[in-house]
Amino acid sequence: MVTEDEAMRRAIALAGRGLGTTSPNPVVGCLLLGPDGEVVGEGFHAYAGGPHAEIVALAQAGERARGGTCVVTLEPCNHTGRTGPCSEALIQAGLRRVVIAVDDPNPVASGGAATLRAAGLQVETGVRRAEAELGNIAWLTAVRRTRPFVTWKFAATLDGRSAAADGTSQWVSSAESRFDVHELRSTVDAIVAGVGTVIADDPQLTVRDLRDGSLAIKQPLRVVVDSHGRTPENARVRDAAAPTWIVTAAEAGTGPDGRVDLTAVLAGLYARGIRNVLLEGGPTLAGAFLAAGLVDRVIGYVAPKLLGAGRPALVDAGIGTIADALELDFTDIAQIGGDLRFTATLRSAKEN
Amino acid sequence: MVTEDEAMRRAIALAGRGLGTTSPNPVVGCLLLGPDGEVVGEGFHAYAGGPHAEIVALAQAGERARGGTCVVTLEPCNHTGRTGPCSEALIQAGLRRVVIAVDDPNPVASGGAATLRAAGLQVETGVRRAEAELGNIAWLTAVRRTRPFVTWKFAATLDGRSAAADGTSQWVSSAESRFDVHELRSTVDAIVAGVGTVIADDPQLTVRDLRDGSLAIKQPLRVVVDSHGRTPENARVRDAAAPTWIVTAAEAGTGPDGRVDLTAVLAGLYARGIRNVLLEGGPTLAGAFLAAGLVDRVIGYVAPKLLGAGRPALVDAGIGTIADALELDFTDIAQIGGDLRFTATLRSAKEN
Ligand SMILES: NC(=O)c1ccc[n+]([C@@H]2O[C@H](COP(=O)([O-])OP(=O)(O)OC[C@H]3O[C@@H](n4cnc5c(N)ncnc54)[C@H](OP(=O)(O)O)[C@@H]3O)[C@@H](O)[C@H]2O)c1
Ligand SMILES: NC(=O)c1ccc[n+]([C@@H]2O[C@H](COP(=O)([O-])OP(=O)(O)OC[C@H]3O[C@@H](n4cnc5c(N)ncnc54)[C@H](OP(=O)(O)O)[C@@H]3O)[C@@H](O)[C@H]2O)c1
Repeated sequence: MVTEDEAMRRAIALAGRGLGTTSPNPVVGCLLLGPDGEVVGEGFHAYAGGPHAEIVALAQAGERARGGTCVVTLEPCNHTGRTGPCSEALIQAGLRRVVIAVDDPNPVASGGAATLRAAGLQVETGVRRAEAELGNIAWLTAVRRTRPFVTWKFAATLDGRSAAADGTSQWVSSAESRFDVHELRSTVDAIVAGVGTVIADDPQLTVRDLRDGSLAIKQPLRVVVDSHGRTPENARVRDAAAPTWIVTAAEAGTGPDGRVDLTAVLAGLYARGIRNVLLEGGPTLAGAFLAAGLVDRVIGYVAPKLLGAGRPALVDAGIGTIADALELDFTDIAQIGGDLRFTATLRSAKEN
Repeated sequence: MVTEDEAMRRAIALAGRGLGTTSPNPVVGCLLLGPDGEVVGEGFHAYAGGPHAEIVALAQAGERARGGTCVVTLEPCNHTGRTGPCSEALIQAGLRRVVIAVDDPNPVASGGAATLRAAGLQVETGVRRAEAELGNIAWLTAVRRTRPFVTWKFAATLDGRSAAADGTSQWVSSAESRFDVHELRSTVDAIVAGVGTVIADDPQLTVRDLRDGSLAIKQPLRVVVDSHGRTPENARVRDAAAPTWIVTAAEAGTGPDGRVDLTAVLAGLYARGIRNVLLEGGPTLAGAFLAAGLVDRVIGYVAPKLLGAGRPALVDAGIGTIADALELDFTDIAQIGGDLRFTATLRSAKEN
């Protein structure tokens, strides 16, 4: 026997297992409780085009779900897409009660709760809403803004340098932080970098197991923002390990500075079904994204080192005076190996 | 009844109440347990020239200490200074057992444990040693190096800026962080700043109650490092609120760069009995201290803001390549209001 609250906690954790493979869909987790409160089925939405969380759980529960409760992180869908509406499936299965964390903000899919109520089911919403929203933050924000959720990730020293005076930067951060970044990459749909970084560092921008170098099965799209097509022919981002989009000004158009129009880049990614983007720099491109108000979250890996000279982690964000500083709120602070990792949300982004 | 371990924990907390007023002496805390294990006296060393912790506790306990145990954070002194030796006082009071956290590294004062043992008392050392050493870290390090312990404190944004492009920097950090800095100042013997900061910001460099501006009773010495005596006549550091030392090259001599010799500054402070120094910047002076290997600890107040331009928190620490970066270890990470405060210890300093 689990309480509905405990069941929701587990459903939120289950949902998270879909991160990185469900876009353009949200992540969703579901537990089914039988009439006596035992768990009779569970499921999560694992990839776009695959069965929804409720359908997976119903298949597992079979007849044992009848008269029971469905605990689900997002309002069950009401429309026939690649699969039939989940609201109908729950009614058919004879559920008595449905407990929902977050309402579906997507006008195409919403209305599930109303359909369930109309069929005589008890519906409760808002259980562990804040926690469930956080688990789905990228998708929820993307749907609200109709552009992908953007996380800027950087690594720096205590004094905010991402390279030394001579340009060297290998292993600013620890092995543990580098593992953590690959973990983070595995949760997103696309990784974006500027051509400056591609030319300077020739990164592969893939999700790898750093112990043996083996590639993850699912790779995010690699995106290089490159106004004049300067990405070298033999750059590693062009290899066969993952799909790549080299966005030139000719393709995406230009902003007021004559460089690639970043709003157009994000619109192009959204149109491809991408909801969750990791911006990996460098400092110039990050500054341009921030100046355009296109960053939602910042994750910094801060190594306990001091340099006192060298390239700053961020340049040219269009801010001239302290009153105009971009304001954030810390949402997480952790130690990763010997480093400090902070996560912070842009205030302006939140208020939109 | 308290255990000896619990008594030591309390003695360490008591000791901390002396921080900022005991130099050139260490902070010391003491609990006396009667023969039945009840606390019969407690004390801490409150200021240089005042009674030692053991003497305070003995005065409180009187006859009840006879046959009991003395739990003390530092080896009782063995020499007659401004007060008589504590080892003798404990023997006279008829204690049966003495429990010590840290041995006295000071050759003049040490030998207390041997004296106690020779008089037939049971002596145990090393109880909660690491914790007690941390509480006395400034004094212990200073005695070991025969120069004051130096903490560099700075405030910066997430991207390591301490002012915006136009030079504005008011309230980079939150009100809570500013309170915390005054708390930190109250634990040190001297506050050091460069003449650049004095000219740019005209700080008072005192310990104040920020609610009403009232000055603390005990003020650290204010030190301005000022090669050519450029500190303005009407600078606030020259006011009557606290003593001030404006160190010129003429007085302290010069280093290889023709500026004030920082090793000589610290030697001068040590000679004045100062063991615990807070270096408040700016970025140039901090760089020079770091380059000279004269910083032991760094405390950073990181505001959740981004600037992308403006003065870096640190300049010119003499490091040109990433392999030479100064390495530290985080010892504390906390949220202070909306800010993040980290404390980190220099590795090279620790290895000395
Ligand atoms: N510490 C870290 O976390 C981290 C992460 C990544 C990179 N890095 C370092 O950053 C360095 C490269 O940084 P970088 O600043 O030179 O390059 P960058 O930020 O990677 O790329 C900047 C380039 O992107 C292109 N671009 C296209 N459209 C743009 C737009 N709208 N706004 C801004 N840029 C646009 C521009 O070149 P075109 O005009 O030619 O297109 C611009 O020069 C490397 O050395 C790398 O090591 C550090
Ligand atoms: N964010 C923070 O935590 C923080 C803290 C403090 C200050 N600040 C900012 O820092 C700015 C001032 O910084 P700054 O770098 O110009 O000045 P600074 O570091 O305060 O002072 C540097 C000056 O100290 C003197 N000095 C004497 N001996 C020296 C030595 N051995 N090595 C280095 N310097 C020595 C030099 O002037 P002479 O050669 O004439 O003696 C040098 O120009 C202010 O605007 C202030 O707002 C920020």
